[in-house]
Amino acid sequence: MPQTDADPRLLALYPLLYVAWADGSLTDREVGLIRDRFVSAGVPLAVLEPWLDADNPPDSGRLLDLLGAIRRGADGLAPAARSSLAALGASLAEAEGHAPDSRTRTALEELEEILGLDHQETSAALFADSRPLAELRETRPGFDVAAMARWLDGDETAVRMRVRELLSDPRFELAHALPTDLYRERVLQWCRVLADEGLGGLANPASAGGADDPAAFVAVFETLACFDLSLAVKFGVQFGLFGGSVLQLGTEAHHEAYLRDIARLELPGCFAMTETGHGSNVHDIETVATYDPSSNEFEIHTPNRRAWKDYIGNAAVHGRLATVFAQLETGGDRHGVHAFLVPIRGPDGTAAPGVMIEDCGEKLGLNGVDNGRLAFERVRIPRENLLDRFGSVNEDGRYESPIASSGKRFFTMLGTLVGGRVAVGSAAVTAAKVALATAIRYGARRRQFGPPGEPERLLLDYPHHQRRLFPRLAKTYALNFALHDLQRRYADPAEERRRLEAAAAGLKAAATWHATDVIQECREACGGQGYMSVNRLDALKADSDVFTTFEGDNTVLMQLVAKDLLTGFRQGFGESGALGLARFMVERARVAVTERNPIIARRSAEDHLRDPEYHLAIFDARRSDLLYSLARRVRHRVERGVGGFDALVQCQSHALVAARAHVDHEVLAVLVDAERSAPGSSLAESLERLRSLHALSVIEANAAWFLEHGYLDPPKTKAVRDLVTRLCGELRRDAVGLVDAFDIPAGCLPPIATA
Amino acid sequence: MPQTDADPRLLALYPLLYVAWADGSLTDREVGLIRDRFVSAGVPLAVLEPWLDADNPPDSGRLLDLLGAIRRGADGLAPAARSSLAALGASLAEAEGHAPDSRTRTALEELEEILGLDHQETSAALFADSRPLAELRETRPGFDVAAMARWLDGDETAVRMRVRELLSDPRFELAHALPTDLYRERVLQWCRVLADEGLGGLANPASAGGADDPAAFVAVFETLACFDLSLAVKFGVQFGLFGGSVLQLGTEAHHEAYLRDIARLELPGCFAMTETGHGSNVHDIETVATYDPSSNEFEIHTPNRRAWKDYIGNAAVHGRLATVFAQLETGGDRHGVHAFLVPIRGPDGTAAPGVMIEDCGEKLGLNGVDNGRLAFERVRIPRENLLDRFGSVNEDGRYESPIASSGKRFFTMLGTLVGGRVAVGSAAVTAAKVALATAIRYGARRRQFGPPGEPERLLLDYPHHQRRLFPRLAKTYALNFALHDLQRRYADPAEERRRLEAAAAGLKAAATWHATDVIQECREACGGQGYMSVNRLDALKADSDVFTTFEGDNTVLMQLVAKDLLTGFRQGFGESGALGLARFMVERARVAVTERNPIIARRSAEDHLRDPEYHLAIFDARRSDLLYSLARRVRHRVERGVGGFDALVQCQSHALVAARAHVDHEVLAVLVDAERSAPGSSLAESLERLRSLHALSVIEANAAWFLEHGYLDPPKTKAVRDLVTRLCGELRRDAVGLVDAFDIPAGCLPPIATA
Repeated sequence: MPQTDADPRLLALYPLLYVAWADGSLTDREVGLIRDRFVSAGVPLAVLEPWLDADNPPDSGRLLDLLGAIRRGADGLAPAARSSLAALGASLAEAEGHAPDSRTRTALEELEEILGLDHQETSAALFADSRPLAELRETRPGFDVAAMARWLDGDETAVRMRVRELLSDPRFELAHALPTDLYRERVLQWCRVLADEGLGGLANPASAGGADDPAAFVAVFETLACFDLSLAVKFGVQFGLFGGSVLQLGTEAHHEAYLRDIARLELPGCFAMTETGHGSNVHDIETVATYDPSSNEFEIHTPNRRAWKDYIGNAAVHGRLATVFAQLETGGDRHGVHAFLVPIRGPDGTAAPGVMIEDCGEKLGLNGVDNGRLAFERVRIPRENLLDRFGSVNEDGRYESPIASSGKRFFTMLGTLVGGRVAVGSAAVTAAKVALATAIRYGARRRQFGPPGEPERLLLDYPHHQRRLFPRLAKTYALNFALHDLQRRYADPAEERRRLEAAAAGLKAAATWHATDVIQECREACGGQGYMSVNRLDALKADSDVFTTFEGDNTVLMQLVAKDLLTGFRQGFGESGALGLARFMVERARVAVTERNPIIARRSAEDHLRDPEYHLAIFDARRSDLLYSLARRVRHRVERGVGGFDALVQCQSHALVAARAHVDHEVLAVLVDAERSAPGSSLAESLERLRSLHALSVIEANAAWFLEHGYLDPPKTKAVRDLVTRLCGELRRDAVGLVDAFDIPAGCLPPIATA
Repeated sequence: MPQTDADPRLLALYPLLYVAWADGSLTDREVGLIRDRFVSAGVPLAVLEPWLDADNPPDSGRLLDLLGAIRRGADGLAPAARSSLAALGASLAEAEGHAPDSRTRTALEELEEILGLDHQETSAALFADSRPLAELRETRPGFDVAAMARWLDGDETAVRMRVRELLSDPRFELAHALPTDLYRERVLQWCRVLADEGLGGLANPASAGGADDPAAFVAVFETLACFDLSLAVKFGVQFGLFGGSVLQLGTEAHHEAYLRDIARLELPGCFAMTETGHGSNVHDIETVATYDPSSNEFEIHTPNRRAWKDYIGNAAVHGRLATVFAQLETGGDRHGVHAFLVPIRGPDGTAAPGVMIEDCGEKLGLNGVDNGRLAFERVRIPRENLLDRFGSVNEDGRYESPIASSGKRFFTMLGTLVGGRVAVGSAAVTAAKVALATAIRYGARRRQFGPPGEPERLLLDYPHHQRRLFPRLAKTYALNFALHDLQRRYADPAEERRRLEAAAAGLKAAATWHATDVIQECREACGGQGYMSVNRLDALKADSDVFTTFEGDNTVLMQLVAKDLLTGFRQGFGESGALGLARFMVERARVAVTERNPIIARRSAEDHLRDPEYHLAIFDARRSDLLYSLARRVRHRVERGVGGFDALVQCQSHALVAARAHVDHEVLAVLVDAERSAPGSSLAESLERLRSLHALSVIEANAAWFLEHGYLDPPKTKAVRDLVTRLCGELRRDAVGLVDAFDIPAGCLPPIATA
């Protein structure tokens, strides 16, 4: 008998409790029903309570204990004693000398009837599984789930727990199929709750009422993403993008004037950078801000239809002020893109004079966010509304900037907005977690097909199902650590900004592509259930889909990563330094190639294949080789007179592969570090398995490249493939525990995930 | 000057017309405006008309002619003459001796103002593209688009054209964001229009008022899929699944009694096979139909919650009769799954006695279809309601069947429903076409980034963008021919059914996975525009998503393909024939392996790499090798005493790869055949390029396998990769023409696709 529930008055209830929970999720109503019946039959509430908490249902370990007790007890019983749950329970209790009284018996019988627990079904649940109990018990995770959860949380456990608690508040109940206007209002209300809790200003300086804690802010965004993603995005638009632009591009006067109201959501606003005609290429946006010294004002103007600000969150309904990016012009000279605060709506909600607003209408997802389009017909704003940290205009119209080069100024300004990419990448990992928790928990209860005459198999016991889900689970762990490492670097003022920007670009792309891939696979792995809105995969899929193309289009971001790797590429080409730089690159890459000699293409013993040093070396080799050949190919073109832009364009696909290889290596390096500093050996073992599975899956996915370049020979390729399959099997036991460690609030998980 | 528009009164209008159309889509209002202005300025309507038809805008060829004329005419003009479209037009016309009158001039100037044609923008459109005109002209497709369209249509051009015409009818206007109840009614109305047009009964026998033309029926479904997919699915549920079950599983009396009303949609109905607990594993559904000889009735009963019929189209609102699949029981014996006609609603829409109906609620997509759940509480139906083609019960309760083996009977019954898979696979190809037409047409007008000082580049001119879209375009062509070939086989009574079923399973899976992949890539390739509902990619993505898991879960279907390849596998294992069969397989595969000796791993000349014989041989080698090794691995397990079920489960991932390789080969074989019987050399050339690109892309995607097995060496792998890139470049010119040849009605294409 399980020790924690040794009260003999429960014995008779065991079969009913096991079947009721194991069958799936009890509704609140059903739980209430069971409780009431037994309490009125005289079973003390305190005895029942631990087994009847709908918010905290017994976990698989407790259910297995129950099942073990039932099976052991039922072993010697006559078939008649198994004919119903009531009979079985009574017999079990009798055998222990605790025969239930007649009231309890009646309650059992009635509940069995009321809950519609069919006999055939229940005996299947209790006895049909032909695997021995010892093997069943093996599905209990081999590590401490709670410790893993805290480890995954990283430095920001406190604020994450606070968000999880908030999300468990009844105010945050997921809404399905709300009409768009109501949905937008609901999301705004949710946002107000978060603002009231002080979460909107976490990144702001203490002088403006904030906590000066950008990492905590990102952690909030990341954790929110397990709930309705419209809320996370609205939160990000208001406090991260709009507030962040004032914080990063403005100076003290702006902070003083606006940050408090923004953080309290008393001043809802927009981040109006993208135009219909220019998304990725911000440099060439066409909105113009012309300084007029006679009035000490800027005139904001939209010259043509392509220059409308587009897809702007908060613009369609709620925003009152917008950070508008425009080409600054003064005295007939242009000084590049700058940000201006432009009022777009009065307090009554009507558009400000000269401001045209359109609603973007329905979107693929995120319909709780009111995206809109903005245009400006020679709208005048005071000179002070220029966010002037990186460039200012004095009364006479003279332009001044602490950064002389306009190119460098442009990239410095954009660079301050790196937090958005850190946040979106982190949120993507959360979305992937919710999908995996759903599919893995469903796969651990859903049966389909089986050998003739035997019970059907659990989906999660099919090796192909494991192969669909477990490498993606392993990569999700890897990205969790990588993004948290990035968050730490983001919050560290000592971190070199350019490296940080490249890392954020690469990880944002990797994480968001991963989320799209994972959610799709999980949707399919849940079959028809995955298609029902109640199971949330639809919203996750639709809402997160834009992640791959907003806050920087992934393809463009990966090109940025590649360019960054080809250090100084942009400046070098077309000038005299071109060849020298390319040659430098070649040398740098060649050294790396030489260094990785110890990788042996033919060694395929398991300890070697699971060795982190091997993983790091082969990942590094791939990245170095690809970078070397990229540099060579670009140089070759430049030498033939191809311009810098075209030279890179012609090697575009190659550059993207090199960038991916680089990001893969960065992610692995963080994962290996995490493993080495694991808090406890069971967690380290668990992570070793995940790291090996992740690394070998990446090697398997890129086997063509490794074979082509002599890093694998065919037998080793096969050994890698076989080991991936084997590791999936090894992971089976831990799978549910590994998604439980994501610590997703119960209200954010759909019915099929709550077993 | 372009000959077709030689009227000199148009000359002055050329620049305005070019810029207006080239800039994007003119709205109806704008077109009307232009027409009215010029007509009232005295330009004859007949001269204007060919240039001002919003439904049939000038194609890129005509626009290029216009641009050529403008550029040639502008060559000698003073800069002032280029200062506005009106000035430029007037100068061009003057130079030809046709100076416009003042009314025309004024109309031009006013329109330029009203349409908001910014000078900078228009001169960019007219003169900034630095490529010579000859090169621009190269973007005109090198083949006859209309002829390609008819070729793609295949045998069923007439009915396809009829559907396209219907879809262009104002009654079929795409609806966005309708509330679910209204949406369901709208889709029902659309369905009624199709029924009134006689399209619902195309597959029915002439004796029941049909056309006896199953291929035409599938072609209708396929063509409908370019419109709202809810309509296609509702159409398929009513006429294909529900009507098809009566047609295929019933006998003459059923046909006589029901088919007419079903085809006219006077009897809306359901196909109630899937249960909550059993989707893929139909064999083990739990609904029971027990014969009661005393009343000459069947009693239909749902024994438990898992046995509810689930995801049933038409069940939530519209269905009145349902084909219910249940375990037939008579005299205490079970005879397996059979189909029964069960009334579920009265004419007033209320549930029939004993029938419980639930609404499945919101879904990821297809919300125009009313999916529901059904359960039966000992519902009695007359004996005649058993669809008794493959099994009947006489008054006394004696069961009789023309097929003695219950296993064979089961598969024969299910096999008759193969049309659903043929249709869904075909519809998936259509959905992929709409997505590609959208992304490719958008990519041909959208510019982003460019070399310093030059106009921005078209997305479609970026090699990576080509690589994202063109191999998918090529595969879409391949699948178009493969699915049409399958449709022909489906309609051919001489076709061996088992082969047909395996082919349908494989192609359904391949086509639906392809659609999911293509639509996702196209969504991302359109950036923010791709996320807006108005651009349809959201609906395409959401609605088609279920295709991969309904009408047979793709993973399960591919296992069916693998099992079919291991002929007799199921029967053989566990019996004495096991080893013999496996050995036979091994021999069969070994022969195939020997036959493909001529494939040379190192030959990499372009003519070889584009040779259809090479493609066929290497595809065949892959399939044969994988099949051989699969047979070997399964045999190995069986020899060690593993049961048949588990032996295959343990090789599941391998089996799936083998099945994919098989389907790849089948698709290629049809494509090569199509190319060989191309109607005309320009179409053949075009298809050669598509076939080469498709085949090489598949080889590239599976390069690891080919390298591992010695079919490619590293230099050849590289040659394949380079040629894929080069072929993408070659295809650039034809790309827009190739999607135009899909002949998608204009109303089904979104704003970003109508350039």
